[in-house]
Amino acid sequence: MTALWRRQPVGIVGLGLIGGSLGLDLQALGACVRALVHRPETASRARERGLATTVSTDPGVLGDCGLVVLALPLDRLLAPDPALLAALPSQAVLTDVGSVKGPVQAAWRALGPRFVPSHPMAGTAQAGVEAGQADLFRDRPWVATPAPDTDPQALQAVRELAEALGARWCCCPASDHDRAVAMISHLPVLVSAGLLLACESTSVEDPELAPLLRRLASSGFADTSRVGGGNPELGMLMARGNREAVLRALGHYRQAIDTIEQLVQDQRWAELHQLLSLCQALRPDYLS
Amino acid sequence: MTALWRRQPVGIVGLGLIGGSLGLDLQALGACVRALVHRPETASRARERGLATTVSTDPGVLGDCGLVVLALPLDRLLAPDPALLAALPSQAVLTDVGSVKGPVQAAWRALGPRFVPSHPMAGTAQAGVEAGQADLFRDRPWVATPAPDTDPQALQAVRELAEALGARWCCCPASDHDRAVAMISHLPVLVSAGLLLACESTSVEDPELAPLLRRLASSGFADTSRVGGGNPELGMLMARGNREAVLRALGHYRQAIDTIEQLVQDQRWAELHQLLSLCQALRPDYLS
Repeated sequence: MTALWRRQPVGIVGLGLIGGSLGLDLQALGACVRALVHRPETASRARERGLATTVSTDPGVLGDCGLVVLALPLDRLLAPDPALLAALPSQAVLTDVGSVKGPVQAAWRALGPRFVPSHPMAGTAQAGVEAGQADLFRDRPWVATPAPDTDPQALQAVRELAEALGARWCCCPASDHDRAVAMISHLPVLVSAGLLLACESTSVEDPELAPLLRRLASSGFADTSRVGGGNPELGMLMARGNREAVLRALGHYRQAIDTIEQLVQDQRWAELHQLLSLCQALRPDYLS
Repeated sequence: MTALWRRQPVGIVGLGLIGGSLGLDLQALGACVRALVHRPETASRARERGLATTVSTDPGVLGDCGLVVLALPLDRLLAPDPALLAALPSQAVLTDVGSVKGPVQAAWRALGPRFVPSHPMAGTAQAGVEAGQADLFRDRPWVATPAPDTDPQALQAVRELAEALGARWCCCPASDHDRAVAMISHLPVLVSAGLLLACESTSVEDPELAPLLRRLASSGFADTSRVGGGNPELGMLMARGNREAVLRALGHYRQAIDTIEQLVQDQRWAELHQLLSLCQALRPDYLS
């Protein structure tokens, strides 16, 4: 049977990085895309950029959609606008793109088996209506975390959407997803932010060193500080939405830093070498 | 007056990433390059790669050089081979490329005013005779840390060499250099290694999560873990050679991570947002 996204218009709520990119790709595939945005200025710019077939600030725009993607920031996803809830077509398959799945599942449970919690793991440093770009999802993981009662046909409809965009589909329990992203996505943001903050506190303590730090920082510093210098709103929402798993990840990280510091303190260079060799051996497993 | 590197052959001791890249660039500029390496197999491969005009395992090859670059790993630089010391031409300007300058200055002080401690800040993940590449130094900082008695003409000769390769010349005291690189070069390696170790300890504690961590790790993880998954020998030598400054940098870092963890623990989200906004504002200052 033809995929749902081909048979009926696809709704997108929010045209930031993820929503805008979805709109561009889906239209390129021939889909009809109805987008709902909050502010008239966003609607106007989204129309100029051609992010959807129809862009409106009226929730009624979603009326004929068979599948609606809630591409909202985590805070708005967890406390949805009642007008949005009222406008969601009662038969439509629903999915979200939130980076934490436990709280999303809890918040949207009332919508029943047609809601499929999902998380396309694609990001850039950009946000907002200018951020959407073609081909953002290609070869990126798109994780779904179905509940026991999730409708298999709804799950399949979301899978067909994700795979049409070139994403790598993956299913797991919400709690596994949240613990995994705490380690490989949220922890890196905090680890990386800590590096920038440590440089800042050094600069404050020793203002004469500050210009040298900035002058000598090289590609290693640029890479290690990249995600920590990213969108602060996203970083905060990740930590807030996934607090327990993030604290557990920070606990593991603190132990690792303690171990390294102790080896340097005790001048146990052979053991430090061994630990860094382990890191070198581990890393390729994490690169797709 | 014509630069020293144009008037007389340039000696390079060691043909790893830095030595080999120097050899390629200097020959491209028309210089005559004499390279000394330890092992006959390295000499043979270096000749095949054309890394120097002459490559030898005999220290006598340096006899007619006006400037010699000691492109040795930090451990061999700090405990130089007596045969090398005996072969260094008595009038030649000498410089090194070590990533820590205090101990180098101490170890080579006996050579007097013609030794110019320096550090071209260019790196890749590669090492060894295959690693050398053209144009490695372009737009990279090349830091010199002259002592009060360093000969100004020797300093000028090294500067002319660095600038001919397109590097950005910079002078500062050795202790400032070492504290700065501890923060912006050595600390990132340990911070980044800690991330890989934390993922490994999570994988060991919860083997079922391990494949998901590897599957979901994305570009943010790849960037943040890059330098921690690099050459373990280099990482260990940096920490060993710059131990005091690295421990101080780790202290600043630990405070930053403590602050972040406390904010997450206490659910002080506005303050976390503020801290991450500071990080976002700081980072561009560190990118050249």
